[in-house]
Amino acid sequence: MKNLTLLTDLYQLTMMNGYLNEGIQDDIVVFDMFFRRNPSSGGYTIVCGIEQLVDYINGIHFNPEDIKYLRELGLFTPEFLDMLENFEFTGDIYAVEEGTFMFPGEPIIRVKAPLFQAQLIETTLLNIINFQSLIATKASRVCHAAQGDPVLEFGLRRAQGPDAGIYGSRAAIIGGCNGTSNVLAGKMFDVPVAGTHAHSWIQKFDSEYDAFMAYARSYPDKAMLLVDTYDVLSSGLPNAIKVFDEITKQGHKPMGIRIDSGDLAYLSRMSRLMLSQAGYSDISITASNDLDEYRVQELKNMGCDINSWGVGTKLITSSDCPSLGGVYKLCAASDGEKLVPKIKISEDPEKITNPGFKKVVRIFTGEGQAEADLIMLEDEEIDTKKPLTIFHPVYNWKKKTFTNYSVRELLKPLFVGGKCTYKKRRVMEIRDFVKSEMETLGAHYKRISSPETYKVDLSNKLWLLKRQMLHDSKGE
Amino acid sequence: MKNLTLLTDLYQLTMMNGYLNEGIQDDIVVFDMFFRRNPSSGGYTIVCGIEQLVDYINGIHFNPEDIKYLRELGLFTPEFLDMLENFEFTGDIYAVEEGTFMFPGEPIIRVKAPLFQAQLIETTLLNIINFQSLIATKASRVCHAAQGDPVLEFGLRRAQGPDAGIYGSRAAIIGGCNGTSNVLAGKMFDVPVAGTHAHSWIQKFDSEYDAFMAYARSYPDKAMLLVDTYDVLSSGLPNAIKVFDEITKQGHKPMGIRIDSGDLAYLSRMSRLMLSQAGYSDISITASNDLDEYRVQELKNMGCDINSWGVGTKLITSSDCPSLGGVYKLCAASDGEKLVPKIKISEDPEKITNPGFKKVVRIFTGEGQAEADLIMLEDEEIDTKKPLTIFHPVYNWKKKTFTNYSVRELLKPLFVGGKCTYKKRRVMEIRDFVKSEMETLGAHYKRISSPETYKVDLSNKLWLLKRQMLHDSKGE
Repeated sequence: MKNLTLLTDLYQLTMMNGYLNEGIQDDIVVFDMFFRRNPSSGGYTIVCGIEQLVDYINGIHFNPEDIKYLRELGLFTPEFLDMLENFEFTGDIYAVEEGTFMFPGEPIIRVKAPLFQAQLIETTLLNIINFQSLIATKASRVCHAAQGDPVLEFGLRRAQGPDAGIYGSRAAIIGGCNGTSNVLAGKMFDVPVAGTHAHSWIQKFDSEYDAFMAYARSYPDKAMLLVDTYDVLSSGLPNAIKVFDEITKQGHKPMGIRIDSGDLAYLSRMSRLMLSQAGYSDISITASNDLDEYRVQELKNMGCDINSWGVGTKLITSSDCPSLGGVYKLCAASDGEKLVPKIKISEDPEKITNPGFKKVVRIFTGEGQAEADLIMLEDEEIDTKKPLTIFHPVYNWKKKTFTNYSVRELLKPLFVGGKCTYKKRRVMEIRDFVKSEMETLGAHYKRISSPETYKVDLSNKLWLLKRQMLHDSKGE
Repeated sequence: MKNLTLLTDLYQLTMMNGYLNEGIQDDIVVFDMFFRRNPSSGGYTIVCGIEQLVDYINGIHFNPEDIKYLRELGLFTPEFLDMLENFEFTGDIYAVEEGTFMFPGEPIIRVKAPLFQAQLIETTLLNIINFQSLIATKASRVCHAAQGDPVLEFGLRRAQGPDAGIYGSRAAIIGGCNGTSNVLAGKMFDVPVAGTHAHSWIQKFDSEYDAFMAYARSYPDKAMLLVDTYDVLSSGLPNAIKVFDEITKQGHKPMGIRIDSGDLAYLSRMSRLMLSQAGYSDISITASNDLDEYRVQELKNMGCDINSWGVGTKLITSSDCPSLGGVYKLCAASDGEKLVPKIKISEDPEKITNPGFKKVVRIFTGEGQAEADLIMLEDEEIDTKKPLTIFHPVYNWKKKTFTNYSVRELLKPLFVGGKCTYKKRRVMEIRDFVKSEMETLGAHYKRISSPETYKVDLSNKLWLLKRQMLHDSKGE
């Protein structure tokens, strides 16, 4: 991974320099990272990119070239530049486990560190988590629409630069994709790679049949043939079937066809019919071409006969919603020895933050279904032997009482006193974790459109604190 | 730059292996990169990323670890892996000068190389050029809407990963932005960086006034104060003016204010009034918050009083159109010594390619305005002493004759016989080039919405060739 230390907004550095001038650089502060809306108006967000965040924090160091560049900007004091030269992260970072589904307003990462340090890392932390969470969530939605069919990530050529291709692939796999076309991602993350041939392969030969035969000579057991270069039903399918007959005679098993244009529902059904009539009823039909969760769902509803999906541009860019608006807000700051809650007021109630040093607890039914999350102050505990009543933070009369339930704290340490406590997991393990986590989330929260809103409530103590601070703030 | 050699779709490698098995790996082929639509339904696209493309090509090498990984996939022959080990690009790459505005269907990059090599580079070439061109174009549109006001790129935290932030900043500057908040981009590309403080700075102090004063102590000559943490008109402005009075007394010149929420048109006008009444009439008012070219244009139309724009998420992701659909299509292939034109047929006329080994010529009026582009076969010449008649490739009766005109060939060599001939330019030089180029493009092509369509015609010879190939292809 490249050194991302300078990958920050200039204002982080000008503020840090200012804090040093004011002598408050070592004040302990707490920042929460959270987002305000799920991508694509969906019902949940899968948090992704934790490992790259850890690598970034572990790798922070200003080298002499960086210092030289900053000095030349003429904005900073020599004392500040000296401090950067010896910069070391000494704080605590807690985060949800990579792959956890989360909801608007919940802290997903909590940074407690000297002001100087907490400020520096804001931009890159957001950059990494916002993007990978966006793509993992998109992939999860596409896979949900595909109802268990394999989904392959094919978007590298339209990704927003090399990293977007690489880390987008990683996030797509974590979100549920079965493989990627991206070879570098395959190598870096030990995930399955997939792909056969392009239209240019067909064009390079004298005929479609010759091209298919040539491909089958090289890959007799992986003959996935792209049948839409000329015409799917009058040319691609008849040629593919001739080739399948040849390789079957040679003792190989034909693998499938891919259709990359046209009416995918009609063409897939007709292709299935022709393949069945030719004796290839269990062959795979892969579809590609501008797919996303909406299109996959529509094709399923139209009765397509597709059993594998290649998804490109619209997945790797999350095209209908190309950013997750994760933010990083001050929620507490030291006043002497003690942490004092901080709140950000706004005209817009949605933009008012939750004050204080907090944690998030997930409440599960006796059957293990996630039913609600509760944001609490760090020192609060839940006694699961007693019933638990939660209430909506705005419409307080909306209450729910749990009797047979269990709870899980979601924020876990990544760094404690600057020491990294994070244990790397293989990407495919994180993918398995996502799969099992998603089974605890009800289907009504996973709908592609108009999902139910999952309950995220505040503990009574946090709710009272917030109300008090809002009332006290009146005027400013 | 990291080694991007494996940053390719798996099918490029499976095809290369297949070509080697068929003994056609050294056939010379020509691929064109072009796009079919301008981003955001705009009138033009600024080509960007050429330098990173050159760096990528120069850096291609498969290291032993890469070969080991590929061997383990079990898809490739030992001969193929040996060839990769000794891979060297020996072809020709021509491209338009970085920063040139281009139009749908025009070759912007032309690769002539052995099939084996031309295939490998497709994916990364598209990844790099698609993204940077997208963002340069978006930036150009935002700057156009800002009518000469400075525009600053602030999007790093919402960019699609680190590279998207870094190369997105580069592209934004090339497209016309005046600076970026991204410090690493500032250092890498020697471009202006900008930024002052965030809401968290204000929150960290006991009052907004204290926070402003503290900032002004550190940066008395760069006091750009963010005035919307509590309330712009009742708190932010009065406090900012008090601080401006202080620093003016100390002999410094106040710099400006920034408004990041609310009704930017109203708040900017009221702020201007209050600032003028306080004697600060020439101060800068920067606006930010979810801006793009449409919003900037709207604010201008509403009579806002803003003279500097901070543009974030919607620029760095090109949110209304987060991908440029650049493609890479085979247009010629060797048959013995001779290059034979190739065409890709499609049901959809828009997807039919232009065959042959081609070039692009821009036609300028006597006054130096770009009036039309002509796609021609490489061996065609224009005699500018004679009148030139061009015609629409579909509606052939639409003709135009030039008498007093000049022409410029747009494709220039980056690599010749594998040797790099590209000369690096500073990013700010490329930006200057874009600025002067854009002056040759009529205002009606630069409109944000519903721009005129710039003429891109085919030479008579190319048009006849294409027609012949289409007719010959009938049936397949």
